[in-house]
Amino acid sequence: MPLSPIQPVPWTRVTIDGGFWGQKWELNRTVTLPLEFEQCERTGALTAYQWDENNLPEREWRIWVGDIAKWLEAASYTLGVVRDDKLAALARTAADHIIKGQKPDGYLYANPIAPDQRWTNLQEKHELYDVGHVMESAAAYHHATGDTSLLDALCRCADLLDAKFGPEPGKSKGYDGHQEVELALVSLYRASGEKRYLNLAKHFLDERGRQPFYFDLEREEWKRLGIKGHGWGVKGEYTQAHKPVREQEDAVGHSVRAMYMYCGMADVGVETGDETLIDACRTLWRSTVRKRMYVTGGIGSTGQGEAFTFDYDLPNETAYAETCAAIGLVLFAHRMLAVEADSEYADVMERALYNGVLSGIGLDGKRFFYANHLTVFPQPDSAKRSDAVALTRQEWFGCACCPPNIARLIAGIGRHIYAQRGDTAFVHLYAQTSASLEIAGRRVKLSQETQYPWREKVLLRVEPESETAFTLALRLPGWCRKPSIKINGKTVNSRTMTKKGYAHLRRKWNPGDVVELTLPMPAERVEAHPNVRMDCNKVALQRGPVVYCIEQADNGVNLADLRLPRASKLTAQYKPGFLGGCVVLRGRAERRENNGWTNRLYNHDRTKRKAVTLTAVPYHLWANRKPGEMLVWMNAD
Amino acid sequence: MPLSPIQPVPWTRVTIDGGFWGQKWELNRTVTLPLEFEQCERTGALTAYQWDENNLPEREWRIWVGDIAKWLEAASYTLGVVRDDKLAALARTAADHIIKGQKPDGYLYANPIAPDQRWTNLQEKHELYDVGHVMESAAAYHHATGDTSLLDALCRCADLLDAKFGPEPGKSKGYDGHQEVELALVSLYRASGEKRYLNLAKHFLDERGRQPFYFDLEREEWKRLGIKGHGWGVKGEYTQAHKPVREQEDAVGHSVRAMYMYCGMADVGVETGDETLIDACRTLWRSTVRKRMYVTGGIGSTGQGEAFTFDYDLPNETAYAETCAAIGLVLFAHRMLAVEADSEYADVMERALYNGVLSGIGLDGKRFFYANHLTVFPQPDSAKRSDAVALTRQEWFGCACCPPNIARLIAGIGRHIYAQRGDTAFVHLYAQTSASLEIAGRRVKLSQETQYPWREKVLLRVEPESETAFTLALRLPGWCRKPSIKINGKTVNSRTMTKKGYAHLRRKWNPGDVVELTLPMPAERVEAHPNVRMDCNKVALQRGPVVYCIEQADNGVNLADLRLPRASKLTAQYKPGFLGGCVVLRGRAERRENNGWTNRLYNHDRTKRKAVTLTAVPYHLWANRKPGEMLVWMNAD
Repeated sequence: MPLSPIQPVPWTRVTIDGGFWGQKWELNRTVTLPLEFEQCERTGALTAYQWDENNLPEREWRIWVGDIAKWLEAASYTLGVVRDDKLAALARTAADHIIKGQKPDGYLYANPIAPDQRWTNLQEKHELYDVGHVMESAAAYHHATGDTSLLDALCRCADLLDAKFGPEPGKSKGYDGHQEVELALVSLYRASGEKRYLNLAKHFLDERGRQPFYFDLEREEWKRLGIKGHGWGVKGEYTQAHKPVREQEDAVGHSVRAMYMYCGMADVGVETGDETLIDACRTLWRSTVRKRMYVTGGIGSTGQGEAFTFDYDLPNETAYAETCAAIGLVLFAHRMLAVEADSEYADVMERALYNGVLSGIGLDGKRFFYANHLTVFPQPDSAKRSDAVALTRQEWFGCACCPPNIARLIAGIGRHIYAQRGDTAFVHLYAQTSASLEIAGRRVKLSQETQYPWREKVLLRVEPESETAFTLALRLPGWCRKPSIKINGKTVNSRTMTKKGYAHLRRKWNPGDVVELTLPMPAERVEAHPNVRMDCNKVALQRGPVVYCIEQADNGVNLADLRLPRASKLTAQYKPGFLGGCVVLRGRAERRENNGWTNRLYNHDRTKRKAVTLTAVPYHLWANRKPGEMLVWMNAD
Repeated sequence: MPLSPIQPVPWTRVTIDGGFWGQKWELNRTVTLPLEFEQCERTGALTAYQWDENNLPEREWRIWVGDIAKWLEAASYTLGVVRDDKLAALARTAADHIIKGQKPDGYLYANPIAPDQRWTNLQEKHELYDVGHVMESAAAYHHATGDTSLLDALCRCADLLDAKFGPEPGKSKGYDGHQEVELALVSLYRASGEKRYLNLAKHFLDERGRQPFYFDLEREEWKRLGIKGHGWGVKGEYTQAHKPVREQEDAVGHSVRAMYMYCGMADVGVETGDETLIDACRTLWRSTVRKRMYVTGGIGSTGQGEAFTFDYDLPNETAYAETCAAIGLVLFAHRMLAVEADSEYADVMERALYNGVLSGIGLDGKRFFYANHLTVFPQPDSAKRSDAVALTRQEWFGCACCPPNIARLIAGIGRHIYAQRGDTAFVHLYAQTSASLEIAGRRVKLSQETQYPWREKVLLRVEPESETAFTLALRLPGWCRKPSIKINGKTVNSRTMTKKGYAHLRRKWNPGDVVELTLPMPAERVEAHPNVRMDCNKVALQRGPVVYCIEQADNGVNLADLRLPRASKLTAQYKPGFLGGCVVLRGRAERRENNGWTNRLYNHDRTKRKAVTLTAVPYHLWANRKPGEMLVWMNAD
């Protein structure tokens, strides 16, 4: 019995009408997506699926990471809501290249492989991960265009997997080293209605973490087959296969794999009514966001294995916080919002979106961060202690997972905003958008007019085709101390109607009704939990959902020495021409005088401090000017 | 023309009479040295020199790092001042094992090697480094015992090197990847009087850093010879061979190699009167101690290459600060004190000695740190981002350079205290010791009675055999704000007679004269230069030369959250039974309450703080109790 989920409003029924996300969305459509298509052409990702298994080319194995698949999914989210012939042609090309690469029996993979080598190195080769991304793109492409060619192809591929893997005797008990196919099979199930795909997704989750460890068995098998792996020595925790998924309590290992797995668990849990999966998701959610998440919504503290480390271990300068992992957290949060309308999920989704995700792409839409550090200090290459402390976004990556992923997220932002269960319509996020719902048999249009997150007002127009009784459940963000709601100009006491952070406004709605939501967003200091040793005696600045940072471009060098006294008042000002238009924070701070330090490295005397003005900009907008220092957590007193 | 150096008083004329160093010295003699001999026996380092070049054994190449040679040098420093028959027998055994391993032509090396492979992999094999340590031990053993057997053997070895390497046409222009032989050849020159050894030391320094890079040529030669190196890809900076030594300005690369090279440069500079070498030493000194040194005197910020990184880059949790590097800094400082009596050298020597060096050995004299972190936070092995953050000292190491090095330093501490040039006697360090000098043709005994560094008084007895006019130059430590001196009870205005941190007390000294030096040592807060980004808004505690830390054993967990307000008064108390007897610092501090944080990782409200007592112990005594957190730099307000 499936649960009764809070269904996201289908993205084809949500339009991005301008404002903050409108700007991003248009840039994504007109700049990022064309550019990424070119990159996929250049790298070969576009045609990667086409190879002849009777004449295997000598091609170095590559983590194609579904580059073109994620791109096609992004294009589909775009094409489902606007007409863009050029983009449509590119999408068709991409779909055709994939279809053309499919083997007669349905097999699909971005790397040439002999038939007898298929699925023999699941721990390293990303074979199912790769096809998982294509399944997602197939579902989206079908939804956007109505064209079934790619969906059909992927169903044939899923059928092949279903014949190979499963609980039945004689079928393989393997699962992929990099999760993705689990959630993708649910996506394909939803698109096709074929329940075997859902069952297969569940099977992969059920097998994961069972003893004996499948990847150990696989490595044993390699000896027999004469296979030489990459030698990554895939460990259980790294791939979240250290124990059965329902018994996992801590977010461990490769953080993107973890997020995609949790998404799959939530999806399967919702579709099958398996509460044990949902409970495990709740536990893993708490571990992730209450103990292992940066204030930016970034996750995965270390570049070693792109992984989680341990509770409260959130180093700033060596923060990995991969863009894909923050995206994964958004996807996971979104799944949990389908289970229950608890604003903690939406708060985290919003935190990741406005900070750790968007920091992954430049203002020009053309450059990308893979890792998102929270402190950056320029240093000579020779001195680097860890993963490159990148000062600037890059054009592309050898493993180019992040760029198409962020394009996909931005294109699909409409998926995350509105949802519905029965006669309750939920608004998870505030953004200038419109959604078309059907409630109690009547069409209802919801539209937001807002400059959120820069301004605190949201005007929400409710347009049922005729008077309709339903509940409008508005999320009251956790960061907001005093939200207020007016309906048609009349203040509503939202406290009494608030459940788990959502104000449930139940009434008979009439055409022309206007809800005015005010979310006061003063600039505030944020402290981290006392166990986060890196952030003790420091504060971060946040206004609304936006986390701030200070950059060398505004504050000079030596940011680490700046100190923001508690008594210092912070001002917020919207600057239209600055960094694409954003709110800048300012406050009086102090820093030490450098004089008196000649020839000294240590000093027993107290150094005098001088007053300076501190200027903070949104974290996601950093590194769009001259490269230099940056930091999020600054000294407090 | 050699410079006129400030000669250290020969160590055989300095006795350690008790007090702080007497305790360490005796423990070293009775516990550490016997134990290390056993370790050298166990690992094979003791007999490593013995192998048959006509019947080369299959032995894995090892960095023996002169384990037994440094041990023998340590034993010699001990045997030169006390009788210890058991230790003498072990030393004889060690010397004999080395001598027995010498090849007929004088060749010596701790690893089996075919004659035609000698000196073909200077960049990686530590061949000259290794024999350099034996040269030092030979000089010390000879000085301690009068026995010439080992010294003769090493002179023959040096003759062999002199025939192989040198500026003359046809001789090799190679030099060792790991410096040591340069300073060792000067030591051998001083012991033997053979000037060719000094010339060879100078030659190695002259060649280093010349273009084309010798190690590139060597790697080219490997192709011809069919040699496969370890593949460490030795780079110029790593081995301080990136430019001619006289042109080097920054302390770079492997920090122990750097220190040993600077020592060799100073030694050769002093002995040959080459001011260009001395000037380069001054420049490199300033780079090291004014920009790249921890407050503990530790150097080499990163475990990657055990190396310096860049100016002011002094991370605490990942601090490498190898014990050997701090020892190397002591040796370098000591060399510079031979050039000029500037208390900056002695201050740094003392800083390293009481902190970054002694932290390398446990209170029991049996366990050792290789790396000396300044912050330690226990973490699961799986989460380690960098070199093991060791919570406990280890019994031994695969590359066991540090344990015998610290034994050697402690045994030879008497070398660092007294010096003389003409009729000026210098006291660089305060320790309960006696020295016997000859000044203006008369014997003069100097002896200190002091509980330094725990107590601020030093009684210095001056005992010339009869009235003698000379200058007693006492170092006034840089950390001391108000030193005071009394001679025979009468206060002396030391200011007028102070030059570069030394109070030059010139008078006719008579038997029974007593100098009373008072060095007030309140507990003080130390700040690091504003450019040290890791230490901004933090203080370290120091009392006298001793740097403090806070440990979990005294302060509970979560040390990073402790904050020591500026207004909080620090008290110092000597505790006789505690950690072998030491001064403990206490002060009122505050930490955040953990309540109010349930289910939260970030908080917009300011967390209340509660008052706690902070207890700090000497850094060098940390990790002698139950393993746990430790930190040196604590939050200030």
